[in-house]
Amino acid sequence: MRAVQYVQVGQAPVVNDVPVPEPGPGQVLLKVTAAGVCHSDVAVMSWPADAFPFRLPLTLGHEAAGVVEAVGENVSAVAVGESVVVYGPWGCGACRECSRGMENYCARAEELGIHPPGLGAPGALAEYVLIDDQRHLVPIGDLDPVRTVPLTDAGLTPYHAIKRAQHNLYPGATAVVIGVGGLGHVAVQLLRAMTGATVVALDVREESLKLAEQIGAHHALRSDTQAPGAVRDLTGGAGANAVFDFVGAQATVELAAKAAAKDSSVNIVGIGGGALPVGFGAVPYGTAVETTYWGGRSELIELIDLARQGAVGVHVERYGIEQGPEVYERMEEGRIQGRAVVVP
Amino acid sequence: MRAVQYVQVGQAPVVNDVPVPEPGPGQVLLKVTAAGVCHSDVAVMSWPADAFPFRLPLTLGHEAAGVVEAVGENVSAVAVGESVVVYGPWGCGACRECSRGMENYCARAEELGIHPPGLGAPGALAEYVLIDDQRHLVPIGDLDPVRTVPLTDAGLTPYHAIKRAQHNLYPGATAVVIGVGGLGHVAVQLLRAMTGATVVALDVREESLKLAEQIGAHHALRSDTQAPGAVRDLTGGAGANAVFDFVGAQATVELAAKAAAKDSSVNIVGIGGGALPVGFGAVPYGTAVETTYWGGRSELIELIDLARQGAVGVHVERYGIEQGPEVYERMEEGRIQGRAVVVP
Amino acid sequence: MRAVQYVQVGQAPVVNDVPVPEPGPGQVLLKVTAAGVCHSDVAVMSWPADAFPFRLPLTLGHEAAGVVEAVGENVSAVAVGESVVVYGPWGCGACRECSRGMENYCARAEELGIHPPGLGAPGALAEYVLIDDQRHLVPIGDLDPVRTVPLTDAGLTPYHAIKRAQHNLYPGATAVVIGVGGLGHVAVQLLRAMTGATVVALDVREESLKLAEQIGAHHALRSDTQAPGAVRDLTGGAGANAVFDFVGAQATVELAAKAAAKDSSVNIVGIGGGALPVGFGAVPYGTAVETTYWGGRSELIELIDLARQGAVGVHVERYGIEQGPEVYERMEEGRIQGRAVVVP
Amino acid sequence: MRAVQYVQVGQAPVVNDVPVPEPGPGQVLLKVTAAGVCHSDVAVMSWPADAFPFRLPLTLGHEAAGVVEAVGENVSAVAVGESVVVYGPWGCGACRECSRGMENYCARAEELGIHPPGLGAPGALAEYVLIDDQRHLVPIGDLDPVRTVPLTDAGLTPYHAIKRAQHNLYPGATAVVIGVGGLGHVAVQLLRAMTGATVVALDVREESLKLAEQIGAHHALRSDTQAPGAVRDLTGGAGANAVFDFVGAQATVELAAKAAAKDSSVNIVGIGGGALPVGFGAVPYGTAVETTYWGGRSELIELIDLARQGAVGVHVERYGIEQGPEVYERMEEGRIQGRAVVVP
Repeated sequence: MRAVQYVQVGQAPVVNDVPVPEPGPGQVLLKVTAAGVCHSDVAVMSWPADAFPFRLPLTLGHEAAGVVEAVGENVSAVAVGESVVVYGPWGCGACRECSRGMENYCARAEELGIHPPGLGAPGALAEYVLIDDQRHLVPIGDLDPVRTVPLTDAGLTPYHAIKRAQHNLYPGATAVVIGVGGLGHVAVQLLRAMTGATVVALDVREESLKLAEQIGAHHALRSDTQAPGAVRDLTGGAGANAVFDFVGAQATVELAAKAAAKDSSVNIVGIGGGALPVGFGAVPYGTAVETTYWGGRSELIELIDLARQGAVGVHVERYGIEQGPEVYERMEEGRIQGRAVVVP
Repeated sequence: MRAVQYVQVGQAPVVNDVPVPEPGPGQVLLKVTAAGVCHSDVAVMSWPADAFPFRLPLTLGHEAAGVVEAVGENVSAVAVGESVVVYGPWGCGACRECSRGMENYCARAEELGIHPPGLGAPGALAEYVLIDDQRHLVPIGDLDPVRTVPLTDAGLTPYHAIKRAQHNLYPGATAVVIGVGGLGHVAVQLLRAMTGATVVALDVREESLKLAEQIGAHHALRSDTQAPGAVRDLTGGAGANAVFDFVGAQATVELAAKAAAKDSSVNIVGIGGGALPVGFGAVPYGTAVETTYWGGRSELIELIDLARQGAVGVHVERYGIEQGPEVYERMEEGRIQGRAVVVP
Repeated sequence: MRAVQYVQVGQAPVVNDVPVPEPGPGQVLLKVTAAGVCHSDVAVMSWPADAFPFRLPLTLGHEAAGVVEAVGENVSAVAVGESVVVYGPWGCGACRECSRGMENYCARAEELGIHPPGLGAPGALAEYVLIDDQRHLVPIGDLDPVRTVPLTDAGLTPYHAIKRAQHNLYPGATAVVIGVGGLGHVAVQLLRAMTGATVVALDVREESLKLAEQIGAHHALRSDTQAPGAVRDLTGGAGANAVFDFVGAQATVELAAKAAAKDSSVNIVGIGGGALPVGFGAVPYGTAVETTYWGGRSELIELIDLARQGAVGVHVERYGIEQGPEVYERMEEGRIQGRAVVVP
Repeated sequence: MRAVQYVQVGQAPVVNDVPVPEPGPGQVLLKVTAAGVCHSDVAVMSWPADAFPFRLPLTLGHEAAGVVEAVGENVSAVAVGESVVVYGPWGCGACRECSRGMENYCARAEELGIHPPGLGAPGALAEYVLIDDQRHLVPIGDLDPVRTVPLTDAGLTPYHAIKRAQHNLYPGATAVVIGVGGLGHVAVQLLRAMTGATVVALDVREESLKLAEQIGAHHALRSDTQAPGAVRDLTGGAGANAVFDFVGAQATVELAAKAAAKDSSVNIVGIGGGALPVGFGAVPYGTAVETTYWGGRSELIELIDLARQGAVGVHVERYGIEQGPEVYERMEEGRIQGRAVVVP
């Protein structure tokens, strides 16, 4: 089968012929119907050889949708022919975190050498992908796999971030979304669908602000040094109760701190290299600052159910598998609108 | 001033002339701009003389909006001329429940003889109403008092019920609202505004089901013996994660139990006299059944903020103060559509 | 191997020779080190033939501890020789409830014919027991299996009940435990170890009240018609914030309602046949009444960790496997002190 | 009356004669029975004149206990002669935060010029202290005021910090307390009384480690560069689920980050000037870092109830009011063991 692979550190990915895997006991083989391409792969491919944590060649793609092609022994939760998406942050399945579905915080995955597909294990930018365990599949019924597959990361990551801040997202609270890109434009929709908070979207791009308004942001403002003051004006001086920074640059994390109210949440989701010092006087009292990672199994189930309601839509661009390397090129050049999805 | 009063047990309320009260230290006098008329007054006025708990004559009306006319000494939170609504379930202010704003569950109110306005203390169906403490006022700015005043009870009661069930109202969960009347039609809107749950409205009246659909219910179904089956069909057999019964008759509480999933919430808000037996085999495992009362102070603040977003609208009928007795008459005859509001 | 089996409805269990099972893919064979005998089996064996839900003969025993004897393909979480206990309330592993570890509320177990060991699947009152999935095992290291095995049900059930009421078990709150028997005497210890609540134990047996005091109850009172008044006296009139009824008879559920405060929890854990009507005026406002079932996977992990701290101890009586039928006999006659554990 | 006052920036406090205040409407005059002296006053008195926020002279002391001497009009919650402690972080009483008792995060206190006693308003290091509102008093019955007064800050601050991290303090979780001083030694006791977490105390002082073990810490370790490794060893490599840093120096906040697990809490309570950068790679995923301030009204009520159980004891040194200046001197020199309490 054809697969988009990262072969050598520092070189662009290529499309190779590789054998179709066979499912062992408990495993499931999917015929890929859609695979999302994520900007974080670009970051991964920028890591130097001596710090590169995965074996090469690596089939890329950690957002996966497919139809069950074959199942190993002892698989009962899904049947051949079923349309599913893949829960990506695989964990050991046995520790306390995994036992409550938060495999994204598995205490033992690293030690056991367990990796998500496309981030260590062979990924979904291929004709078939092997899933290690049936518990990592979520049926999607007749939802369109192409429009649904980005929910597994570009949707699940903001979903998880929002869930963690939910105590600060009471009706009448104010939520700020910094960066209305791939994840941020899903965050705006999720905040509207899941909470009664007033949603303020910040971006430096005019078209992103227009998009933010179209998809439900109550306010869309330029992300600059005036923004914290504008947020305070909108909140009677108090500031935002939850800030989600999908850029994560130094300028945006500092903006987040300035816009935050006392007793609030700041979540730095974007991996833009910024860091916010937390200490006496550095952020308001009671502002919890964190970086979160992907999301939980039950959260993906909830998110797919939400998509069934029609409450969240992702803007996608379709590509063929042979165009995989080109997609990464476009991505680095900032020429992707919304989420790129490869349809083999 | 003119005031609608319940004078003698068993007789219809009348409009009387009574003195305008004066605010003592810490108290606030409101010129009433709107007073909601609630069906629960009809229940109160049906109680027999020997079990009637309040002193007569009693000025009715526990939903109050007004403009601050005068303030007593030591009042700083509001100023003369400010437009406010009143938090009704007054408590002692000092116990643990009151100290976290849940005065509706005050442990000491009864013992101390503290009563809500219109339910023991003089109510809002009058030209002026005296408020015992500035903390019981929530400024509403330029919101229309007539359309806002029902939020203080017909809004706050379902708001509180929904907040208590919020752990079961995750995105993709299913919420059932039984009875799309005064409180139920607010509940449908609140569920849509505050949660990502799928909302199923049940009613026996065709026009209520139409209304439910207009205001956002995903499904509106006839409330009969088929309804639990229909809810199970909509949920893949699992049942509803939260049921709010705004009727509370024996038939509806039993319907609630049949429609509920394992690990769910059933809240009997309506005072229709029904009771649901909870025990091994009687309701699904993990179904928490409760009756809640009104709501908390911070909840009313949140709800008013939500109204500022335009997320909730109450259908109201306006009446003059001299029509107060007539409103109760119409209410008993089922001739009020939405919420009756008296505008002095 | 020898196994205690329920062979025919209405007849006492017997010890039979049955083949040692072999683990298929994903499965684990345990050499049983300890199997708890639970009073609920007596209830199960009292069900009539036409309503009996499980295939016969049925090897009994739903509290299991063992050493891994053999593993099927694709088992990585445990190794041969490891000492483990078994999480009993098996679910489908894939639904939202299972995906967050609450397999005890699996929406699909019944439909899929999935049963706990000893309650449908072959149980632990045998020399070996087959476990369907490695995720159902929790390693116990060098903890004594005999004293630890009752935690899997007699511990996990009250643990889960307490976790669900934790918002009402704040420091200074009052918790009432009705029935200081097999589950109740664990509940008293757990409440002391996990919460800052004042613990009031109620029982009709003098020796149970003594035991309650020894293991940490702040108050131990006779469970009679005076008890609700005594609880109110201890709480300044307010009542208990959480009541756990491990008897579940009509008298005790009514006692629970009378002892409960506003805004509290009542959990009917015991299957004594009682039912508490919940409706306007029937229980205090905000009192959530529920019956819960067993517990969650992560909860069992937490509970085993707590046992490692030495925070909870179960009084056990040891029996050999040939004595299995006798244990049930003694149980029916009320002649078991603490928890009976069979050690093959 | 005699009062310990800070008169001029940069100079030591002195004891002055000042008039006894009189309670206006809603106010309460306390005859001081005990006033705790807090190390944070030393920090306040080190601030430069141009940044000093309070009017001088300022009567010091923000931990207050007293007997009600006189009440203004409209005071009903307390009676003359009652023994009480004072909730210190006064807020506006009307905003959402205040309405749920979190006056410590009042959005408007600063803007309205509302200050705690001893930190802007006249404090408790005097024979009498004026309380602005009856809602700020918590009756203590026959508890010893001297041993109870430190709970209002040295107790409430760690109590609040622990409550905010409670989702990470499940049984079997690991909590780390850095600095077993005035607040830290209360934190150790509270963690044992309120949670089932394993408590690890870190300090550089040998006698503090001994104290930690006496009051219930499961482990007491030297707070040095080995400490994070030791915490990881105790937790199977995972790290601590909650870290409370009562020192807040750069070295300790960095230790906190190194000891923390994924999906954990780090609370920097001490004002030692350290700041922890939070960003991708800087702290584990899901580690929420915050600095909290004092606590809530209902939390103080809960804490006093916990003290009634005997679950928490504070080591105190008694001084007379004329010794007030000397206490601050000793404090700067590190010559106070436990909490200094002035008894007028």
